[in-house]
Amino acid sequence: MPQQTVLDAEQLASFKSHAVGKQTPFLLFDLGLLQKKYHELETSFPYASIYYAVKANPEAAIIEKLRDLGSNFDIASIYELDKVMALGVTADRVSFGNTIKNANIIKYVYDKGVRMFASDCESDIRNLAACAPGSKVFLRILTEGSETADWPLSKKFGCQSDLAVELMVLAKNLGLDPYGISFHVGSQQRDISAWDAALAKVKFISDRLETQAISLRMINIGGGFPAIYGALSHDLPTYGQIIKRFIDEDFGDKQPLIIIEPGRALVAEAGVLVSEVMMVSRKSRDALQRWVYLDVGLFGGLIETLGEAIKYPLVCDHDGPSVQDVILAGPTCDSMDIMYEDNLYSLPVDLREGDRLYWLSTGAYTTSYCSVEFNGFPPLKLYTING
Amino acid sequence: MPQQTVLDAEQLASFKSHAVGKQTPFLLFDLGLLQKKYHELETSFPYASIYYAVKANPEAAIIEKLRDLGSNFDIASIYELDKVMALGVTADRVSFGNTIKNANIIKYVYDKGVRMFASDCESDIRNLAACAPGSKVFLRILTEGSETADWPLSKKFGCQSDLAVELMVLAKNLGLDPYGISFHVGSQQRDISAWDAALAKVKFISDRLETQAISLRMINIGGGFPAIYGALSHDLPTYGQIIKRFIDEDFGDKQPLIIIEPGRALVAEAGVLVSEVMMVSRKSRDALQRWVYLDVGLFGGLIETLGEAIKYPLVCDHDGPSVQDVILAGPTCDSMDIMYEDNLYSLPVDLREGDRLYWLSTGAYTTSYCSVEFNGFPPLKLYTING
Repeated sequence: MPQQTVLDAEQLASFKSHAVGKQTPFLLFDLGLLQKKYHELETSFPYASIYYAVKANPEAAIIEKLRDLGSNFDIASIYELDKVMALGVTADRVSFGNTIKNANIIKYVYDKGVRMFASDCESDIRNLAACAPGSKVFLRILTEGSETADWPLSKKFGCQSDLAVELMVLAKNLGLDPYGISFHVGSQQRDISAWDAALAKVKFISDRLETQAISLRMINIGGGFPAIYGALSHDLPTYGQIIKRFIDEDFGDKQPLIIIEPGRALVAEAGVLVSEVMMVSRKSRDALQRWVYLDVGLFGGLIETLGEAIKYPLVCDHDGPSVQDVILAGPTCDSMDIMYEDNLYSLPVDLREGDRLYWLSTGAYTTSYCSVEFNGFPPLKLYTING
Repeated sequence: MPQQTVLDAEQLASFKSHAVGKQTPFLLFDLGLLQKKYHELETSFPYASIYYAVKANPEAAIIEKLRDLGSNFDIASIYELDKVMALGVTADRVSFGNTIKNANIIKYVYDKGVRMFASDCESDIRNLAACAPGSKVFLRILTEGSETADWPLSKKFGCQSDLAVELMVLAKNLGLDPYGISFHVGSQQRDISAWDAALAKVKFISDRLETQAISLRMINIGGGFPAIYGALSHDLPTYGQIIKRFIDEDFGDKQPLIIIEPGRALVAEAGVLVSEVMMVSRKSRDALQRWVYLDVGLFGGLIETLGEAIKYPLVCDHDGPSVQDVILAGPTCDSMDIMYEDNLYSLPVDLREGDRLYWLSTGAYTTSYCSVEFNGFPPLKLYTING
């Protein structure tokens, strides 16, 4: 069932009341909504183990909540590992998901007790064999589209299927456990059939591995499940059901363990970024458009508006008699610090300095993405609530 | 005289020796080179007051060095103001250059003693009159190209000439000091004639102001003077001479005070970012290109490689018998974290894990641009030296 609204009136009112009296800009994060979302994922993917992609939001309270809910953790760096372990997550609940690493990093992670690693190239497999002997390894593959397209951004991670098979054999020969295959269909993937094509490729690899006496025991189908922003998308139960059908079609009775790595889908909707209008201006007397400058911008949490990629739902705390399209920009002296000038938002014509704007679905990739002190501005504050 | 090399052999050797034994990634910043550059600017622009654009690099040691050299400071936020004043810079050496601000910010800055403000819209002029009475105000104007072009990024700051004249009159009527006009031709501007067009516009405004009994006493010709990266550019003395000729042509004997706001041009070349190769891989057995993954990327200091905008000179600490084009990427799990895949750099074919790469001209917009903890990675460290 397609869905679109992020928060109902009551939830929005709760966020607004918690925001009273706090100096903007800040992110309000609702741990109650996070818990709800976690249960929705469990129910939607009853056949999968959940590994929270910590990079989406590494806030301690979020990690603790997910730890208590029974989640596992997908880790991108030794720093993230130190953080989750300091918060009481045991190493058996951790997967080291970053294919980019050297021998020192592998040693460090292995010494901490982690025994599951992503990989996608020969030098890394050899380092893993030397520094993390016997560990479970899963090979990340390039998926359709990313493999054939000329837009090679998504080629940063993963290898081609042939190489994946070779590397699984190499891993086995070097004493590693050739455990599984992973892929990532791309963040905020609204086309569920992307998983179908990727799973078909895993099936092909699985058959090839059988001829090498390796039986595929795990498929990591990545993250990419969308959070609700502006655009229409399916809900999580729909994703869960349809992807299960794809898996059944390819693997029938002999199903490997399925791992999912949700980041954005778990935390985005539980966050509301509260900002204030700093200044409203026109560039000339007869200018058609107003520029609305806020106290937050690309370098203070809204980096995913770069290229206007993510169009956050926006709520204005000001009931104006009429609205008009505006350009939205951040407070720094950087001309890149403009959120939306092509996708214009309509805001009240009598909007003024001090009015508040609420950015919904901002729980992912905001606080940790902030710059240290660009133009002197401090990083975004985060407050947790239990709505 | 066109120039291209950033560091001579001796300077490079000095950086390399200071880099020994420190864990990568980090920025090495040479305060001696900064001093040299400051003197070069003074000599090249003997007719101008220098206001260092703190946002380019807000490191305390840099501010202190420039304070001692007699520089003034262009400030983008109350946080930058607090920082420079805590380091002993007095308010009379500060210009508040950010047009985006509200009444509270103006009050704060005025209370600290600052009496010079940039502005570009009516509401701001009214706030300044109310909260910073009597202060010097300079109006930022849109420059040719930015005003007419369809690429409206550079429209974020500034107003049209007609409005600038009106606002100067308004400022005077409200008890402010209608002091000057400012413009910014764009960062890393290698076409000196951009200043000619902008100055002609200021002359036009100046003539209009005369009819309103306002005499223009200051022109802030901004920053934008290039640092040496890969591309050919003129040296600073050439900029200084040619821009002086433009000013003479427009203003003859009656020259307003000239202010320049160098950021990048002062600090970029004094910095070297030291990184290490984390992993080298091919995506398939017959792949033509190698991927070289470093321990630093877009979120750890190299954000200006976004869109491959800045092409830093790169030095490899490895003498290979032959070289080959590679794709350079950062260490995070983000597919955007790729420095160069169109503008390929040639690196030794036997490049391997642990080899060091030195990024020259990285003293500007690196450390302060870093993310707080994206993928868990800490911000870039900075060490100062006196080469």
